[in-house]
Amino acid sequence: MGRYVIGVDFGTLSGRAVVVDVADGAELGSAVHAYRHGVITERLPDGGPSLPPDWALQDPADHREVLRTAVPEALRVAGVDPAEVIGIGVDATSCTVLPTRADGTPLAELTLFRDRPHAWPKLWKHHSAQRQADRITALAAARGEPWLPRYGGRVSAEWQLAKAVELVEQDPEVFHRAERWIETADWLVWQLCGTETRNLSAAGFKGLHQDGHHPAPHFLAALHPDLPALLAKVDGPLLPPGARAGALTAEAARRTGLPAGIAVAVGAIDAHVTAAAAGAVAPGRMLAVLGTSTCLIMNGEHRREVPGSCGVVEHGVTAGRWGYEAGQSGVGDIFAWFLDRALPAGYAEQARRRGVPVPDLLDALAADQPVGGHGLLALDWHSGNRSVLMDHELSGVLVGLTLATRPEEIWRALLEATAFGARTVVEAFEAAGVPVEELTAAGGLTGNRLLLRTYADVLRRPLHVLDTAHPAARGAAVHAAVAAGAYPDIEAASAAMAAPRRETWHPDPARAAAYDELYADYRELHDHFGRGGTEILHRLRARRRTATP
Amino acid sequence: MGRYVIGVDFGTLSGRAVVVDVADGAELGSAVHAYRHGVITERLPDGGPSLPPDWALQDPADHREVLRTAVPEALRVAGVDPAEVIGIGVDATSCTVLPTRADGTPLAELTLFRDRPHAWPKLWKHHSAQRQADRITALAAARGEPWLPRYGGRVSAEWQLAKAVELVEQDPEVFHRAERWIETADWLVWQLCGTETRNLSAAGFKGLHQDGHHPAPHFLAALHPDLPALLAKVDGPLLPPGARAGALTAEAARRTGLPAGIAVAVGAIDAHVTAAAAGAVAPGRMLAVLGTSTCLIMNGEHRREVPGSCGVVEHGVTAGRWGYEAGQSGVGDIFAWFLDRALPAGYAEQARRRGVPVPDLLDALAADQPVGGHGLLALDWHSGNRSVLMDHELSGVLVGLTLATRPEEIWRALLEATAFGARTVVEAFEAAGVPVEELTAAGGLTGNRLLLRTYADVLRRPLHVLDTAHPAARGAAVHAAVAAGAYPDIEAASAAMAAPRRETWHPDPARAAAYDELYADYRELHDHFGRGGTEILHRLRARRRTATP
Repeated sequence: MGRYVIGVDFGTLSGRAVVVDVADGAELGSAVHAYRHGVITERLPDGGPSLPPDWALQDPADHREVLRTAVPEALRVAGVDPAEVIGIGVDATSCTVLPTRADGTPLAELTLFRDRPHAWPKLWKHHSAQRQADRITALAAARGEPWLPRYGGRVSAEWQLAKAVELVEQDPEVFHRAERWIETADWLVWQLCGTETRNLSAAGFKGLHQDGHHPAPHFLAALHPDLPALLAKVDGPLLPPGARAGALTAEAARRTGLPAGIAVAVGAIDAHVTAAAAGAVAPGRMLAVLGTSTCLIMNGEHRREVPGSCGVVEHGVTAGRWGYEAGQSGVGDIFAWFLDRALPAGYAEQARRRGVPVPDLLDALAADQPVGGHGLLALDWHSGNRSVLMDHELSGVLVGLTLATRPEEIWRALLEATAFGARTVVEAFEAAGVPVEELTAAGGLTGNRLLLRTYADVLRRPLHVLDTAHPAARGAAVHAAVAAGAYPDIEAASAAMAAPRRETWHPDPARAAAYDELYADYRELHDHFGRGGTEILHRLRARRRTATP
Repeated sequence: MGRYVIGVDFGTLSGRAVVVDVADGAELGSAVHAYRHGVITERLPDGGPSLPPDWALQDPADHREVLRTAVPEALRVAGVDPAEVIGIGVDATSCTVLPTRADGTPLAELTLFRDRPHAWPKLWKHHSAQRQADRITALAAARGEPWLPRYGGRVSAEWQLAKAVELVEQDPEVFHRAERWIETADWLVWQLCGTETRNLSAAGFKGLHQDGHHPAPHFLAALHPDLPALLAKVDGPLLPPGARAGALTAEAARRTGLPAGIAVAVGAIDAHVTAAAAGAVAPGRMLAVLGTSTCLIMNGEHRREVPGSCGVVEHGVTAGRWGYEAGQSGVGDIFAWFLDRALPAGYAEQARRRGVPVPDLLDALAADQPVGGHGLLALDWHSGNRSVLMDHELSGVLVGLTLATRPEEIWRALLEATAFGARTVVEAFEAAGVPVEELTAAGGLTGNRLLLRTYADVLRRPLHVLDTAHPAARGAAVHAAVAAGAYPDIEAASAAMAAPRRETWHPDPARAAAYDELYADYRELHDHFGRGGTEILHRLRARRRTATP
C-alpha cells in the first residue's frame, strides 16, 4: 500500500494541488484552480469602491475554493485512494496578509466591512505602503535596532509591518476590529486543522521576528500610538518548517475529500518550500524561483548581514539553519506587461501562423542577435525593486531607443535586465561572505530558453533547471511528509523527494564577456536612478500619486 | 487674366506640387506623388547591397517623377491655363546631397556606380557620419575657426561636410568621380532651367559657407588629404532666396506641362521657404515646422551666436537678414515608430470601431489625464538630437514605466518630450539675446490637437497654427513669385501671399505650471544623458555598431 501527501500552492493568480508519492516525490496528479477575482487592483468586487494606484488585494473565498475543487480533482487525476494520503502541506505567496476575527473569519467577509478596501487580504505586491516602509526603516536606523541589518538595512513595503502601519493610519476601525492579523498560508492551515499556528519563516522574513521577539512595543508606539496593539493580533504558536500544525478537521476532510485526522504541516512561503522540492537545502545552494517575481532562496551555516537582501532568518528555510532570501519584485510581470501593452498586432498573427506561443516567437526573433546589437538597456523596476534597493517607488527605465528599434529587441532587453538584476543580488551575497556555490532555477519562466541562456551568460555560472511543473506545491508536499512523520527532517525528505534536473545551461564565454560590459552600464544606471544620483523616479511617482484622484 | 505660380516641395517620403494665385496666395490645386523607393535604409533597390545602420538614401528618379506627374496633375486639379503660370519654385529637405557628373547626371544612375551606396543621394537623416562630424567640430574648435560659434559650436552629422568626409574616407573612387556635389533642391532647379546654381541658404546652413567663403582648403586637408578637391565640386553661382536661377527649358516644359521660359527660382530648404508661407519673415517671428522632424526658423536683425542652434546665416531666410535655424531631428518620426512598433493590436481595432484615426484615439484616451498622471518622462532622441546637443549618436530614453503604464500614456509622454525639446531650443535663443516674440506652427503634425495644446502649455506662449495643407510648397510658390518679378522681395510677397491662421492655442495656467516641474526633470535627464553626466548612450551605440556585421 502506497503513502501519499498533498501539497497545495496558493499563487498570485491561481492555486494548485499536487498528489506526491512519499517514497520518491513522484507527482501523480495535479489540478489548478484560477481565482475568480484574480488580483484585485481596480475596484472591489461586486461594484465596490475603486482602489488607489499600487493596491493589490485578493479574495479569501478564492483561496477556499482551491481547497474545495483542486484538492479532490488532483486526487481524482492521480487515481490514488484518499485513504492512503497521510498529510497535507500548504504554501502561499508572502507577505499576503489579512485581518480576521478571533475565529478566523476574514473581516472582508463581514457585511459591515465588505466595502472597506483595508479589510481585504493585501497581496505581496500591494505596493502602496512605501512611505510607511521608509518611516519604519528610518526609525529602526535611528534607534539602532539590531534586527535592521538582518534585512539588508531596509524594511520592505511588502511586509507585515508596513501594511499594518498603512492600516492603522488609513482605516483605524478595521485595525481595531481585526482580532487576528495573519499570513494567508497560516490562515489556510487554520482552516484545515482548526488550530491557529504561525510559521517561523514568514514571521521572520515578513514579520521582523528575530531572536524570539517581534519588534518591541515602544518601537511600534513610535510609529503610531495604537500600533502596539498589533502584537496581540500576531501572537500564537510559532513553528519551524515541516512541523505538524494539527490534524485535518472533519469539516475540512469533507470539503477536500481527504481523511480526517491526517497531518497538516505548518504554513510556508511559496519560494521557500520550493527549496525542498529542488533539493537545494544545503548551505550555498541557491534556488531561483523565476515567476511573476523572482525569489532567491538559500541556506547558510552562519548568520551574515547582506546589504539589500530581504532577510536572514533562523529556521527560515529548514529547521536549525539560517535561511536567506532576496528577490526581484517584477520579472514575469514585466514580460506580461510588454506582451499585453507594448507588442504590435503583427506579432500575434505571426505566432499563430507559425503555431508557436508569442514569447517563443520573440525569443526566436531576438536570440541570434549578438549581445549589444539592439543598443538597448533597461532597468527591471516596473514593479519596484526588492533587492538590493528595497524601494517600490522606483519604476522601469529603457534607454537606447532608436527609430530602428524592433519589439523583439525591447523584449530581449527586458529579459536581460532581469538577469542583470539577479546578478546584482548574487554579487551582494558573495560580497557579504555568503558564497553561492550552485544555482538552480524553478518556476514558470523556466520554459523560456532564451531567458535561461541569458541568465547563465550574465551570471557566468551553470544554471540547473528543475524538472517539475509544480515546484512549490511539490515542496509543500515534502513539508507534509515531514509533518506526517515519514522523514525525520526536511533535509532527509528533500533528498528522497526532490525533483530531478531537466537540464543545465552553461555560459558561453564570448556572450558572457560582452554581457560583462552591458552589466557595468546596468550598474551605473541602477545606482544613478536607485541610489540617489537622481530623485527623478521618486518625483515622477509622487506626481502620479498627487495627480490621480 | 490671372497669374499663377507653382511651388514644388520634395519631402522625405513624397513630393507635392501646388498651384498658387500670385495675387493672394490662394492654393488652387495640388497633387502629391509618393516616392516609389521612399527612404532607402535596408538595402539598395533591385537587390543591391544591404546598408549599415543609420543610413538613409533616396533615389533621384523618384524626385524627377514628382516633376513629371505631380506638376501637371496639380495644374489639372486647379483648372488653370498653364499659359498663365509665370514661375516655379522648388524646395527640398536638407542637407540631402548627391554626387553627379558635370552635366548633372547622378552617379547613382551610372551602371558603374549603381551598386555603390555612397553614389546615392544621402538624405538629411542619413546619420552614420557622427564620428566624422565630431572630428570636424574638434578640429574647428582647436583651430578657433570663426564660423564654428555661428553653428552653435557643433557641426552636424547631417551636413554636407560630414557626409563628404564619410564619402572620401569610405569610397574615395566615388568622391573623385563626383564632378559636382550638390543639394537636391539645387540639382532639381538645374534639371528645370539647365543652369547650375546654389542657394545661399543651404550653402550657409548646411555647407558652412560664411562671409563669402567655404571652409578653407588647409582646414579640409587637415580632415583628409584629398578633401580640398571638394571645393571645386561645390562652387558655382550662389544666389539669395527668391532670386531667379534661370528660365524653364523646353525639355522641362514638355515634362511638366508648363510654358518654356518662365522663371525658375533658386532652390530652397523646405522649412525655410515655409517662413514665407507663414508670414513669419519679420525678426522675432519664429516658425515651427512640425513634421517628421521639426525645424525652427526665424529672422533676426543682428547676428548672434546661439549655442546648440543649427546656424545663423546672412540671406539664410530672406535677402539681407540674418536667418536662424534650429531643430529636432525626430518628432513625427518618433510618433510613427510608436504606432508601428509599440502599439498593441486592440487600439487599431478600437479606432476602427470609433471611426477615427489611431493617433486621434490615443489623444482622446490620454488628453484628460492630469499633467504627471502617467508618471512617465521621455527623451525625444530616437533619431538623435539636433538642437541643442547636435549629437546623432544619442538615443531615446523612457523612464517611469510601471506595470500599470498604458500605451496612451507612453504616447502622451512622447508628445510631451518633443514639446520639452522645443522649449529647450526656444530658451537657448532667448538666453543668447535673440528674443522669440511670436510662435507659429505649420506642418503635418498640426492636425494633432493634443500636441498643439501641449506645446502651448509647455512653451507657455500662444501658438498660432497655419491654415494650409501644403506650407512648404506654398512657400516655394512665394519664392517663385519673387523670381518672376511679381513682387520686389520675399517680405512683400509673403505679406500678400501668406496663409491665414487656422487657430491659436493659449496655454492653460495650471497645466503650464505642472509642466514647468516636469520640464525641470526633462532638463536634468537631458543634461545627464546628453552632456556628459554619463556616456552610456554613446557606449550602447558603439556596441550596436560593432555587433552589427
